[in-house]
Amino acid sequence: MKNTKYMITKPTLLLDEEKCGKNIKAMFLKAQQNRVSFRPHFKTHQSLEIGRWFKGLAVDKITVSSLKMAQYFSEEWNDITVAFPVNILEIATINQLAEKIHLNLLIESTNTIDFLKKNLKHKVGFFIKIDVGYHRAGILPTDIDMISNILAQAGEGDKLIFKGFLTHAGHAYTCRMPEEIIDVHKKSEEQLIILKERYKAKYPDFILSIGDTPTCSVVEDFSSIDEIRPGNFVFYDLSQYQIGSCTIDQIAVAMACPIVAIHETRNEIVIYGGGVHFSKERLEDEKYGTIYGKVVEKKGNIWGNLIPDMYLKSLSQEHGIVAVPKSKVSEYEIGDLLLILPVHSCMTGNLMKEYVTIDGRMIERI
Amino acid sequence: MKNTKYMITKPTLLLDEEKCGKNIKAMFLKAQQNRVSFRPHFKTHQSLEIGRWFKGLAVDKITVSSLKMAQYFSEEWNDITVAFPVNILEIATINQLAEKIHLNLLIESTNTIDFLKKNLKHKVGFFIKIDVGYHRAGILPTDIDMISNILAQAGEGDKLIFKGFLTHAGHAYTCRMPEEIIDVHKKSEEQLIILKERYKAKYPDFILSIGDTPTCSVVEDFSSIDEIRPGNFVFYDLSQYQIGSCTIDQIAVAMACPIVAIHETRNEIVIYGGGVHFSKERLEDEKYGTIYGKVVEKKGNIWGNLIPDMYLKSLSQEHGIVAVPKSKVSEYEIGDLLLILPVHSCMTGNLMKEYVTIDGRMIERI
Repeated sequence: MKNTKYMITKPTLLLDEEKCGKNIKAMFLKAQQNRVSFRPHFKTHQSLEIGRWFKGLAVDKITVSSLKMAQYFSEEWNDITVAFPVNILEIATINQLAEKIHLNLLIESTNTIDFLKKNLKHKVGFFIKIDVGYHRAGILPTDIDMISNILAQAGEGDKLIFKGFLTHAGHAYTCRMPEEIIDVHKKSEEQLIILKERYKAKYPDFILSIGDTPTCSVVEDFSSIDEIRPGNFVFYDLSQYQIGSCTIDQIAVAMACPIVAIHETRNEIVIYGGGVHFSKERLEDEKYGTIYGKVVEKKGNIWGNLIPDMYLKSLSQEHGIVAVPKSKVSEYEIGDLLLILPVHSCMTGNLMKEYVTIDGRMIERI
Repeated sequence: MKNTKYMITKPTLLLDEEKCGKNIKAMFLKAQQNRVSFRPHFKTHQSLEIGRWFKGLAVDKITVSSLKMAQYFSEEWNDITVAFPVNILEIATINQLAEKIHLNLLIESTNTIDFLKKNLKHKVGFFIKIDVGYHRAGILPTDIDMISNILAQAGEGDKLIFKGFLTHAGHAYTCRMPEEIIDVHKKSEEQLIILKERYKAKYPDFILSIGDTPTCSVVEDFSSIDEIRPGNFVFYDLSQYQIGSCTIDQIAVAMACPIVAIHETRNEIVIYGGGVHFSKERLEDEKYGTIYGKVVEKKGNIWGNLIPDMYLKSLSQEHGIVAVPKSKVSEYEIGDLLLILPVHSCMTGNLMKEYVTIDGRMIERI
């Protein structure tokens, strides 16, 4: 970030390509060592260019969370799972995509299977979404009637190919210790193994697919699982750090925000950088209460450690208020840039729409 | 919204032009009756087309909160106040705008005045931002040294024209009763009147400008004030309803979101509509705790009242979970659209990027 002050004039999302590359490589190797299939979720970066970094490791299939993302990535990817319950109103887009690529959909009701049977024009794979405890979407693994009904109904047609059971252990996000995450994973695994035993005779090729960053980062043994679909690990963020999924060193994105006012009497700095840049995603910090980001040291061309007691304490639409230790506040001037790690990189990336690498190159998103 | 099911396939931000028009008209009339200047804040709608509805009432000056918005609106507006502390890194844009239009900036430090004196190429107006109790940005009204220093420094050059004192009583957002809002306004007014008395001999033409939607909606008497700059009132939202700034009937935008799953055992509906659509802005509801939106009845071509006990209880990136009363859950089907009032229309509009009117016309934003 040489001469950053002259290049960056507005809130900017910086990407450290080296850290990002290391995160991708580490997750790829973990999948390889476990002999599980690696189908990374691209909802975090949403960038064809970053997608190519995965291609460099011979990754050939991906996950997304909307048909819009599937359309964007279908320019360069031929095998895409849309890990979101089918929105039947978008059947035209589903048919367009299914004609072009290997498309996998997510099913959690017989109504949706019924609709697809009547309206699909091309073959699609489907996963049954299993709720292993997050209780957001999916069928309970004990609801064998529903699962068997879906499979029976799908089996009657020739366009719906059963691919397996898919989970997202979103409740791993409430964990704060590796042991807790491992426990969440073990419980999910147990439920999935029972399903595998029950259905493997009839469907010998189906797989078990799991997909949250905390589990995929912390768990070392995936012997019962066939596929992992983490997404956030590509950048990580303060939420993942709080959970214990990553170190501060691994967080590959930071917001650069200009200082527009300094209030020494309140030990606060006002930055240009608000809810329309960071998102209003918050984190309950043990020490500081609700926060929206933490400030890191500038260290040559990259960023370094957290600056103790310096954090984003509130956000309006365009303003951010940074708490600064009394001893530090005189070190800053109007026009300086602060580098701030975001609470949730998926949401910040979605708002910022592009990345600037630490040597000043632009990387586009969807 | 006839045949909505066939037109709207994804999360869509609906705009009721009639309600929006009434909101604009009511605020315009209030300003007129009070003989205060009306400089509406355009950060909420960020749309040239909606801006033209104000032009229809002969409004000729506006407020924005970034230079980017000022650039966008400078296509059709000649007098713009950027109600955000000057970001000196964007001096090139400031100079471009100051050459083209009447540009007013916000000052809260001598350092910034000093920088502008050295770097401005054209005349600009400036307001001194006064902190009347929100403690986000601005100078305390008791800090006469700082105010006088800024005025003295500005006075030495020929490019910085003092326009007045500007406030944003953001602490009015914590009010829950009209009396509380009126009290916030009275206290702000008292502080501003003292400043007016002090400086009016030397600067006979300067004005007092205030600008929050709760105050401008609830207070009826602006006799000591010269200009109002409300923004959110154009659409209102659930936050403003909670504060007491508006009725449910006045909320002019609603999200239309497809149902993708129904969980009768949990009395929950899963919608396509998440944090990337609504924003993660939340509201602490007395009855339901943290919520992200409330569902309204579909009523012919528009939306009607709130449906009791039906609200958006959580948001992920693309998913929303709607709590539904047990007695109502069987009334809904996968593929139906729910209409949901947002917590904060500024943030939702920023994410959605366009509006669809209730008769299906698209209105563009920045």
